[in-house]
Amino acid sequence: MKLHGQNFIGNTLSGNGNQTFQGENPATRTKLETDFHEATSNEINEAIAKANEAFSVYSKKSGKEKAGFLEAIADEILALGDDLIKRCMEETGLPEARLIGERGRTMNQLKLFASVAREGSWVDARVDFANPDRQPLPKPDVRSMFQALGPVGIFGASNFPLAFSVAGGDTASALAAGCPIVVKAHPSHPGTCELVATAIVKAVEKCDMPDGTFSMVQGPSVDVGMGIVRNPYIKAIGFTGSFRGGKALFDEANKRPEPIPVYAEMGSTNPVIILPEALKERKEAIAKDLTGSVILGTGQFCTNPGLVFVEESPEKDEFKSLLTKSFQEASSAVMLNSGIQKAYQGGIKSLETSEGVNVLAKGIDGTEGYFATPYAFETTVDNFLKDKHLEEEVFGPSTLLTTIDQKEKLVQVIEKLSGHLTITIHATESDLKNYQHIIPLLEKKAGRLIINGYPTGVEVCHSMVHGGPYPATTDSRTTSVGTMAITRFARPVCYQNFPQFLLPDELKDENPLHIWRLVDGEIKQ
Amino acid sequence: MKLHGQNFIGNTLSGNGNQTFQGENPATRTKLETDFHEATSNEINEAIAKANEAFSVYSKKSGKEKAGFLEAIADEILALGDDLIKRCMEETGLPEARLIGERGRTMNQLKLFASVAREGSWVDARVDFANPDRQPLPKPDVRSMFQALGPVGIFGASNFPLAFSVAGGDTASALAAGCPIVVKAHPSHPGTCELVATAIVKAVEKCDMPDGTFSMVQGPSVDVGMGIVRNPYIKAIGFTGSFRGGKALFDEANKRPEPIPVYAEMGSTNPVIILPEALKERKEAIAKDLTGSVILGTGQFCTNPGLVFVEESPEKDEFKSLLTKSFQEASSAVMLNSGIQKAYQGGIKSLETSEGVNVLAKGIDGTEGYFATPYAFETTVDNFLKDKHLEEEVFGPSTLLTTIDQKEKLVQVIEKLSGHLTITIHATESDLKNYQHIIPLLEKKAGRLIINGYPTGVEVCHSMVHGGPYPATTDSRTTSVGTMAITRFARPVCYQNFPQFLLPDELKDENPLHIWRLVDGEIKQ
Repeated sequence: MKLHGQNFIGNTLSGNGNQTFQGENPATRTKLETDFHEATSNEINEAIAKANEAFSVYSKKSGKEKAGFLEAIADEILALGDDLIKRCMEETGLPEARLIGERGRTMNQLKLFASVAREGSWVDARVDFANPDRQPLPKPDVRSMFQALGPVGIFGASNFPLAFSVAGGDTASALAAGCPIVVKAHPSHPGTCELVATAIVKAVEKCDMPDGTFSMVQGPSVDVGMGIVRNPYIKAIGFTGSFRGGKALFDEANKRPEPIPVYAEMGSTNPVIILPEALKERKEAIAKDLTGSVILGTGQFCTNPGLVFVEESPEKDEFKSLLTKSFQEASSAVMLNSGIQKAYQGGIKSLETSEGVNVLAKGIDGTEGYFATPYAFETTVDNFLKDKHLEEEVFGPSTLLTTIDQKEKLVQVIEKLSGHLTITIHATESDLKNYQHIIPLLEKKAGRLIINGYPTGVEVCHSMVHGGPYPATTDSRTTSVGTMAITRFARPVCYQNFPQFLLPDELKDENPLHIWRLVDGEIKQ
Repeated sequence: MKLHGQNFIGNTLSGNGNQTFQGENPATRTKLETDFHEATSNEINEAIAKANEAFSVYSKKSGKEKAGFLEAIADEILALGDDLIKRCMEETGLPEARLIGERGRTMNQLKLFASVAREGSWVDARVDFANPDRQPLPKPDVRSMFQALGPVGIFGASNFPLAFSVAGGDTASALAAGCPIVVKAHPSHPGTCELVATAIVKAVEKCDMPDGTFSMVQGPSVDVGMGIVRNPYIKAIGFTGSFRGGKALFDEANKRPEPIPVYAEMGSTNPVIILPEALKERKEAIAKDLTGSVILGTGQFCTNPGLVFVEESPEKDEFKSLLTKSFQEASSAVMLNSGIQKAYQGGIKSLETSEGVNVLAKGIDGTEGYFATPYAFETTVDNFLKDKHLEEEVFGPSTLLTTIDQKEKLVQVIEKLSGHLTITIHATESDLKNYQHIIPLLEKKAGRLIINGYPTGVEVCHSMVHGGPYPATTDSRTTSVGTMAITRFARPVCYQNFPQFLLPDELKDENPLHIWRLVDGEIKQ
């Protein structure tokens, strides 16, 4: 499939800008063919104007229609076949099996949100019937439901070139909610973005969705992203990426004449706490599996565990030896791009030179491409409590083991933690009974708590929370994975004293869509 | 009941500050007895530290326990008896019947949120069972529910000294969610605030809730409010008041090292559109009832209609005469305080001197106190479209009638509108059929759409949305009236692979609380 390097202004291709850039193969450090045209501000504004036009039609599509559209996107992505996987491998250095798996996940996400849109109860329909005889004043007929928020700007991540990119979770949830989207393609995999965009436009046309339901603009400049955030028609932003990037969008969105919500998932260090009995029982397995979770995807997930806490004990020393060995045997692997490699190397250097931090183990160095060598560091709890930088994310295959010399300091550590996506505990049943008091403390610090598992591998399901207190995200009240994500792109609208024919189907007396509703305070179907 | 003028640092009274202020009777312009001590920054921080301590206990109280507490607050407010009504009349100039009604509403709000907490399904419990046999990877056990966000700062409004003040809607919803609160008392009714705070502290003690579940600080200085917003333990802000005040809190909250959500309800001009057939049929009634809605509560509700649109027609001229007459006969009434009167007078002057705006009618001038004289203005649609200031809220009993000379310009007017709490249409059935196309446009502009009613009189029920796009509020995804308001003060927390004994009751296999849950994607009780 030949790439064209243009922007998608709705269903129309456009490459008016003079600035171009290329993809790069991080495994070979060679530029890939195709010049991609950075979108001009005119192109960006045109795409958003189209999204605004499309909103009035697209937002009124039925749940069934939106579901068919999302499923068509999934089909069209699959129909791209090996071309997509091949280009994506070239642009990201990620292995084929991972990308085939990620494509499956991407399609499943689209289908899951299709099922939510089709079923329809997500709109939280509420009906309170009138009571003209109420004293001292008659009670009016009042009904409400979630309606789509408006055009949404979506910033994909480099680390999930399919599942968190052009047709990723933010796209699936925004389209399911009824919002047209304008995607900023990630400059680290522009060809992959173009292929997926082509699939989405095909689905737009096949399903007869309005032109402007989907647009995608290319470009590495900050201006492209800010052009989306500043446009008054844009009503929300979905973002997955770095703290710096997410915070910049958040600040810009709040400076607008009309501030808008920014759902930025900015990563986390995902602390792991290994309790004493578990360490006794399973130190070998934990050392091995923890290493696997740290280096999974070359440590480029939002959920790789970058902090490990264990209490001082003879078993801790054994565990430390096991972890050391396991990291020493860990292979390097290619990172997504040179910028990420550079940041990782900077993070490693910063830990190496931090007072009170020692290198525990270094993995096997790579030889080519933008590789990253796994690292394990160690420090003391007093040092960890003193140096807040040690909690910051080093994006890549490294982790920091902190030894807690007095049991009481575990609570101090937890209370000092800032917000994370996940916190994991390894524990036996007796550990959990002895340490039950830390659970409510952990609830305040993360979106997801895991017992005897690993934070990598985020299940896409109704109950998943991939979010957490700041700085893990800019909005702890939401999630970017799981079906609850749809509510980010909607707001409640209330209809008072409306005749039946003017009410949305969701709110009509006879409940024609057969959805679950709150009727005079009772949940009913 | 003798007032003490002190701050409530949890259950302890404290008046360490040297700055004091007094309430004022706006009907007589006389200062009321009792010196109130403005809270020092130490007192503010102490109150918030107590709230943070209380959080770990209070947030784990069962729905039943929180319900009992909210009901006890309602009982204690009623037990204040006439003392409360009397002091509130003195401080606000509002009539007795209104305040007795508002006390009833305040109690009903507390009881409604008690019922929501007791029933328990609001937590959106989700359970996805494990499937160890799933290929290619086993499915983990994942469950989630809303948990309380943390200590909340609440800023009451002057215009509802009971229902949107110390024990108002924000208080009821935050306490129902499990959040301790620190209230900034409104300096326009400090004695009323103190009495209600006394009632809440009694309920805290009777129900054995932790000290710090409720605090209240006094003071007119900006520093008092900002001291709450800036404190790192505070995790959300509820506010009802002016655009200027709400926006200042919003900006400050976003500048914090950890930004927090601000739910500011900042008012609205509540456009009313009178369609042609309705005008023919009911011009007398509309002129009369519209005047009533504009001047209700001396125009000091968030929902008084400040903009009226009618199409040019012979009936419009008759309507204009009727409205003129009705405003000319409208009496003045006392406003809440001198600042509000001054702002109203400024707003009137600004409209009087606006190009293309004429005074249609002036009501009967008052004689004493901080009175406000009703005003009706008129302008043309072209002038309205040109001058964006005409859409701004003039808080008080005034309204602006805009005549639309060409039918098509109604759509232009709607598209130009910024966010409002409400938009009202007066229409016959044939009007609604002829103007059906404007409904989706209106949905984008307001939280609540009303047909053949008036925006004043906000029903407290499950489906109410008292919110709307910016600048009506800082968060259009929420409401400050109605039971959905509880979700503002919660965030989802996910539990992966938790043993039964560590799960919250809401998420246990056997559903001991018998709440509605989403189990493997199906809604079940």
